[in-house]
Amino acid sequence: MDVFISGVGMTKFGKSKDSLEQIMAEAAMLALRDARLDRVDAIFIGVMNVEEFVGDSNFAALLADTIGLAGTPSTRVETASSTGAGVFETAFYAVASGHLKNVLVLAGEKMTHLPTNKTTRILSEVIDRSERRYGATMPALAAMIAQKYGQEYRLPLHKLEVILSRVAMKNHANGVLNPYAQFRKKISPEDYFKSQMISFPLRLYDCAPITDGAAALLLTSDPTPVKVAGIGHATDTSAVRHRASLTSFNSTKEAAMKAYRMAKLNPSDVQFAEVHDAFTLFEIIGTEDLGLFPPGKGWKGLEEGETHLRGKLPINPSGGLKARGHPVGASGLAQLVELVWQLRGEAGEDRQLKRAEIGLAHSIGGLGNNNLVTLLERSDRKRVMAGGWNLDYHPVTKVAAKTFPTSFSEGIGKLETFTVLYATPEGFRSPLTLGFVKTESGERLLACNPGCNSPQELKIGKTCFVNRREGLFVFEKMPFWRRFKRWFKRRASGVSD
Amino acid sequence: MDVFISGVGMTKFGKSKDSLEQIMAEAAMLALRDARLDRVDAIFIGVMNVEEFVGDSNFAALLADTIGLAGTPSTRVETASSTGAGVFETAFYAVASGHLKNVLVLAGEKMTHLPTNKTTRILSEVIDRSERRYGATMPALAAMIAQKYGQEYRLPLHKLEVILSRVAMKNHANGVLNPYAQFRKKISPEDYFKSQMISFPLRLYDCAPITDGAAALLLTSDPTPVKVAGIGHATDTSAVRHRASLTSFNSTKEAAMKAYRMAKLNPSDVQFAEVHDAFTLFEIIGTEDLGLFPPGKGWKGLEEGETHLRGKLPINPSGGLKARGHPVGASGLAQLVELVWQLRGEAGEDRQLKRAEIGLAHSIGGLGNNNLVTLLERSDRKRVMAGGWNLDYHPVTKVAAKTFPTSFSEGIGKLETFTVLYATPEGFRSPLTLGFVKTESGERLLACNPGCNSPQELKIGKTCFVNRREGLFVFEKMPFWRRFKRWFKRRASGVSD
Repeated sequence: MDVFISGVGMTKFGKSKDSLEQIMAEAAMLALRDARLDRVDAIFIGVMNVEEFVGDSNFAALLADTIGLAGTPSTRVETASSTGAGVFETAFYAVASGHLKNVLVLAGEKMTHLPTNKTTRILSEVIDRSERRYGATMPALAAMIAQKYGQEYRLPLHKLEVILSRVAMKNHANGVLNPYAQFRKKISPEDYFKSQMISFPLRLYDCAPITDGAAALLLTSDPTPVKVAGIGHATDTSAVRHRASLTSFNSTKEAAMKAYRMAKLNPSDVQFAEVHDAFTLFEIIGTEDLGLFPPGKGWKGLEEGETHLRGKLPINPSGGLKARGHPVGASGLAQLVELVWQLRGEAGEDRQLKRAEIGLAHSIGGLGNNNLVTLLERSDRKRVMAGGWNLDYHPVTKVAAKTFPTSFSEGIGKLETFTVLYATPEGFRSPLTLGFVKTESGERLLACNPGCNSPQELKIGKTCFVNRREGLFVFEKMPFWRRFKRWFKRRASGVSD
Repeated sequence: MDVFISGVGMTKFGKSKDSLEQIMAEAAMLALRDARLDRVDAIFIGVMNVEEFVGDSNFAALLADTIGLAGTPSTRVETASSTGAGVFETAFYAVASGHLKNVLVLAGEKMTHLPTNKTTRILSEVIDRSERRYGATMPALAAMIAQKYGQEYRLPLHKLEVILSRVAMKNHANGVLNPYAQFRKKISPEDYFKSQMISFPLRLYDCAPITDGAAALLLTSDPTPVKVAGIGHATDTSAVRHRASLTSFNSTKEAAMKAYRMAKLNPSDVQFAEVHDAFTLFEIIGTEDLGLFPPGKGWKGLEEGETHLRGKLPINPSGGLKARGHPVGASGLAQLVELVWQLRGEAGEDRQLKRAEIGLAHSIGGLGNNNLVTLLERSDRKRVMAGGWNLDYHPVTKVAAKTFPTSFSEGIGKLETFTVLYATPEGFRSPLTLGFVKTESGERLLACNPGCNSPQELKIGKTCFVNRREGLFVFEKMPFWRRFKRWFKRRASGVSD
């Protein structure tokens, strides 16, 4: 059964004095009014961590009561930071099953009322426990991915920084035009480069902000002008170090493949997209993983203006997570609300895209291990597809080897990537140097370097010595005697260093 | 599209040394093996509060990885203590939509590792904030409902206690026969009456225990001998005091109505049921709300042996939440696993029911405000229904009036029901006396009574004086001068007291 969208609504994102249920009720009311409905068959609630952010449980029932719909079935759905997209998928199945006709999808998060290091700690719980205990945060892991991306595609640091700044500037410029965005001011290269270093090389302006906000959407089996064309969803290993690649997300590729297949659309049919830019580089990687640009070339589309609001393929016309704000549970649904506004031609004079018949939303859960891709399209226009559907998208996804607790205790490795984290979570000293080290047997380890306080002291690709201290791996410069021993051993066996 | 069950599995419930993901992986493996599957199209994870019990977030993706299915879409679903049933419903829609063929439903909770008062505090978060701040816990609210039930159906305290003890004894006797149950010992009336008073009149043996455990189930669109016949789901007001009735749950009645309708079955067609007995009386109320017994008569079915394992309508052949244990997120799914075992004739010689073609599971979320009813049946047997489907079930559900913040500040009221809570949550002094008071304008208030330490001091129906102190309502005996004033006023207006 086909599924359509009959109403949308969202609150202005930012810092709110209202409670989570109040802001979510506001979004729900707007969507219900938009759809001219006063009751629904079921409610699906997306919220990532209401337990720790707000201290409530049984939130789905509370919300049904708050919006005056006590009695209506209400279910909470969660897929980490892609929750807004996850709850949409779940509600989609409910309507597609034919058992429910009108379903309210409602997602939100309340985050700004807590101190930042507490929020950082709560957000870090999406990271695998084995990596979290090193003090790894979302920005820290994203920073290591950014450095690795630069090295893999031969982008020197200053070039990488320029690329990142351009994502931030583009999305902030779009945010200016979005009355629902948290930030409505342009930023200059100077603003970007002067902003605080969070986790080298990522600055404050590389990271989506902490935000309160809610979005709502009504799904129905009755035809409306906007139709759900395709949905894809995939996970990946919990630990980042177990992934086959650090510069692309398998879970995005798999999810995209499924969404294109369900919709019978090609990446080249996508006219605009909302891409999960929790960190600036993730927008670049996202557009590559989605098949919109070739691997390593996503930044070129940006440089050449293609992904700008008036470009050939606008990315994040809403301002993205970067400028609209990132209430973690709500973002995935807010992306879909933007898609609907664009598809309906209701995005407002300044922001409205000319070509808006097929839009894509891409949402990342955790550090890229619970991702969703959703395709919406106008149901009342005939599809114009160049060569028909040929699925010109065949992503190479590599599955990581089955992982066991490592038997590694000490030895030599190569520094694959690293970061120096300045905004550490509750309980960790700043700065905190972390790196992924590849051992000689090919295993990737997360390790810290307590002796290093500056990124200038480290270089990707350098050989280092790793050992275990108090249950954590520590990487350091090779001591002289080890370097000598290694040189001697290699010489004896005829290997040139 | 019809939905069938192809595999089930669960862990032995109780205190486990393993982590939550380990016990859930164990249940998943058993279900996958039972269904002879090694991959699925999606995973739906039910867990109530992994954030606070375990300190993890992004749990759906973690679990997919733990069971060796990294890549597979994985979504977490939650409806408070009915989560196991809620995740089943959500997964049911996904398969019924035709988009997914084989889906793993997996539910669990890990609770025993925390101190009891912390667990009590976490569990209390399902209660509306306005009632939670009085120190109201689940047992406290259940105790007030029990007292009200006794008063409404004219059961003196000793009779009520005998009824409660019989539920506990029946379910413990069934638990002896269930190798997966946490408690496998019979209890005597002496054991029951000697057990610690938790919240007057509920004793330890009236409350389901704190448990670790996981259950798993595979849904498929390929026909198997067990079919999902019907599912119903409904919520109710968040605050208990806003409910129209205190002695039945609207949400159960609404959910049951929907489930019977989808299945085209009557309550009289149900051959056995797993009923949410988190508190002994809830089993009695449950069987009434489900239409299996008339209101106020549920305890008679028990007294006459009808609901015993070898009775006409066995209730909780597994031992129920009471004896099998109650890992909050898992219980709803564990009930369905028991249904499947019974329907397949695999429940084991001692526990296997003779008539097991149609079974019902009933799960309560929070204090009765997010409930689900599920009907499973043999798909390979012809239904034998006495007079065809006539839906001989027309529950009276009353919707509470729209609620606003109360304007009441002080005045006279009637004590509707009360409890003295001994096992108080973190931060509350024991004992704690709580009561529902109905004001002269008909509004129900939750109030405390700091001066009262014993249930003997109070009586349901008594007039009391309520005022507000430090933001909380307090009820007390009517002071003499107020009684006099009231008597005088009434006399003057010709009202007899």
